Amino acid sequence: MKLVRFGDAGQEKPGLIDSSGQIRDLSGIMSDIDGSSLSSESLERIRKTDSATLPVAPSGQRLGACVGQVRNFIAIGLNYADHAAETGAPIPAEPIVFNKAPSCIVGPNDDVIIPRGSQKTDWEVELAIVIGQRASYVGANEALDYVAGYCICNDVSEREYQLERGGTWTKGKGCPTFGPLGPWLVTKDEVPDPQNLTMWLDVNGERMQNGSTRTMIFNVAQIVSYVSHFMILEPGDVITTGTPPGVGMGMKPQRYLKAGDVVSLGIEGLGEQRQRFVAFDGPALDTSKSWKGH
Amino acid sequence: MKLVRFGDAGQEKPGLIDSSGQIRDLSGIMSDIDGSSLSSESLERIRKTDSATLPVAPSGQRLGACVGQVRNFIAIGLNYADHAAETGAPIPAEPIVFNKAPSCIVGPNDDVIIPRGSQKTDWEVELAIVIGQRASYVGANEALDYVAGYCICNDVSEREYQLERGGTWTKGKGCPTFGPLGPWLVTKDEVPDPQNLTMWLDVNGERMQNGSTRTMIFNVAQIVSYVSHFMILEPGDVITTGTPPGVGMGMKPQRYLKAGDVVSLGIEGLGEQRQRFVAFDGPALDTSKSWKGH
Repeated sequence: MKLVRFGDAGQEKPGLIDSSGQIRDLSGIMSDIDGSSLSSESLERIRKTDSATLPVAPSGQRLGACVGQVRNFIAIGLNYADHAAETGAPIPAEPIVFNKAPSCIVGPNDDVIIPRGSQKTDWEVELAIVIGQRASYVGANEALDYVAGYCICNDVSEREYQLERGGTWTKGKGCPTFGPLGPWLVTKDEVPDPQNLTMWLDVNGERMQNGSTRTMIFNVAQIVSYVSHFMILEPGDVITTGTPPGVGMGMKPQRYLKAGDVVSLGIEGLGEQRQRFVAFDGPALDTSKSWKGH
Repeated sequence: MKLVRFGDAGQEKPGLIDSSGQIRDLSGIMSDIDGSSLSSESLERIRKTDSATLPVAPSGQRLGACVGQVRNFIAIGLNYADHAAETGAPIPAEPIVFNKAPSCIVGPNDDVIIPRGSQKTDWEVELAIVIGQRASYVGANEALDYVAGYCICNDVSEREYQLERGGTWTKGKGCPTFGPLGPWLVTKDEVPDPQNLTMWLDVNGERMQNGSTRTMIFNVAQIVSYVSHFMILEPGDVITTGTPPGVGMGMKPQRYLKAGDVVSLGIEGLGEQRQRFVAFDGPALDTSKSWKGH
C-alpha cells in the first residue's frame, strides 16, 4: 500500500493511493498515519478495507509528510562507499548515527527554506525507513519485522553548520523545512528488496545523483538492528539511511543551492519529490539579538 | 509552580505540588503536562486555579518524567569549563549540540538499566530547560520568554558507546532509561536566576559532583537562542545544559556504575532524584542475532 497524508500543513488527513492513483480518505478508519497506526495489525486492517468504499479526496491536495508525529528522526552518515570517498571521509567501521530535529519535517513538495545567511545548503536523496513496532536489541536477521515501510527523504544539509561550527552534525541537519518525507509511505510488502532500488536527484533538471541502494555499506536490516542496540526505536520513528555520490559538497568546485533552484528526486517504487528552494523570509539578522546576547 | 506527572508508566496524570507538599490532580483541567499545556496562557490558567479545589492524589504515587510527549530531547556538551578540563577536551567556542533519544525518558526515581554488556555507564547532574513556546531565530535577550521552566536531568551516559564507537555522541546518550527528568517542572517564575543554582550528585551516598550553574560556559538564554538558529524549538522540547565536574570518566582511576549502585542528585529549588542502577534483564546476547546479521 501507498499511504499518504493530505491537506493543509498541520491539518493533514490520512489517505491511501488507490489502483487508479486517486487519494482515498482514511479519516473514517484512523486519525492519522503515525506511530499509532503502523503496527502490522493496523496496516492489515487498512489492507482488508475495500478502497472503493472510501471517499475520494478532492483533487489538487497538498501532500504532507507521509508519516506524522515523528519523535525520533535518525540519520545514518556516510553509508555509501562512493559518497564517503567524495567527501574525503574514511569508510566507517560502524554506522554513524545522528539526528535531524523532528520540527524540520515537511511535505515532499513543500518549499525548502535556505537558512538565514546560509551559503552551503546541499541536497541528499535517501531511502528512509519508517518503524512500525517497538524495537530494542533486535538482530539483523529479524530487524525487518519491525519496519512498517519506506519513503523518500531529502536529507537537506547545511554544510557550514554541519562541519564548521563545532561538535556533532546536528546543527546542519535539522534547520526548518530540511526534512521532506514522502510522497508515500510504501509498506514493506511492496518493497521486496530494499537493497536494489535505483535513486536519483536533479537540480534544475540536471542530474546530480544517480545511484542505487545496492551500494549501501550497512543495509536496512543492519541499520535497524544496530540502532536498536543503543536506543529503543518506537513506532513512527524514521531512520534515513545515507546518500549516494553526487552531493554539492563533493563537486569541484563545490556547488550549493540558491533561492529559485528546483530540486527533484526519486527512488524506484517510492515516487518522486520536488522542492523549490526559497530565501529565508523573516527579518534580517539583528545583531542586538545575537545568541551571545551582546 | 511545581508541576508533576504521577501514576504508572505510560498512564501518568498531570498534577501540581500544593503549598503543603501534596500532589493535586490536574486531570480535570488538562490531559497532560506536555507541549500543549506549557504556553504562558495555559500556565496562567493553572496558576489562577485554587489548588484547594483540586483532588488530592492518593499517597505513594510514582512520579513520571515531569514533561510528557517530548519530541526533541537536546543536550549541550562540555558546557562547564572545569568539566571540559576533566575530560581533557578544549573549551568549546560555540555550544556543542547532540541528541538523546526521546524513548530514553523516565521518571526521576525509576530504575536505570545498565545496557547489556556495558562497562562504562556514567552519571551527569544537569539543569534541563523545558520549552514553552515555538522558538526560531530568537536572540539571547529574549530567549527566556520561550522557556516554560526547568527540571533536573541525569544525563546518563555510556562512555564507550559515546566516544569509542565512531561518529557522534548519540550512541551513548539515549539508551533505555538514560533520561530521568524531574521530579518537578518548576515554572520559570520560581527560578529567578537560573545561573546561580547549586547542584550535586552522590553515588551510594558519596558526593561525586558539587557545582553551580554559575560556571556554565554558555548560559540558558544563550543556549536557547543558539539552538533556535539551527532548528525550530517546539513546546515540550527539552534541552539539558551540561554537567559540572565529577563524572566517573574524569576520575583517576575512572569509576563507572554497576548494578546495585544508587545515584541521588539535586539542584537548588528543583528537588531531588534517586535512581537504583540495575542490570539488563533481557536475554543474553545471542551472537546469531548480531547487528551485522552473521
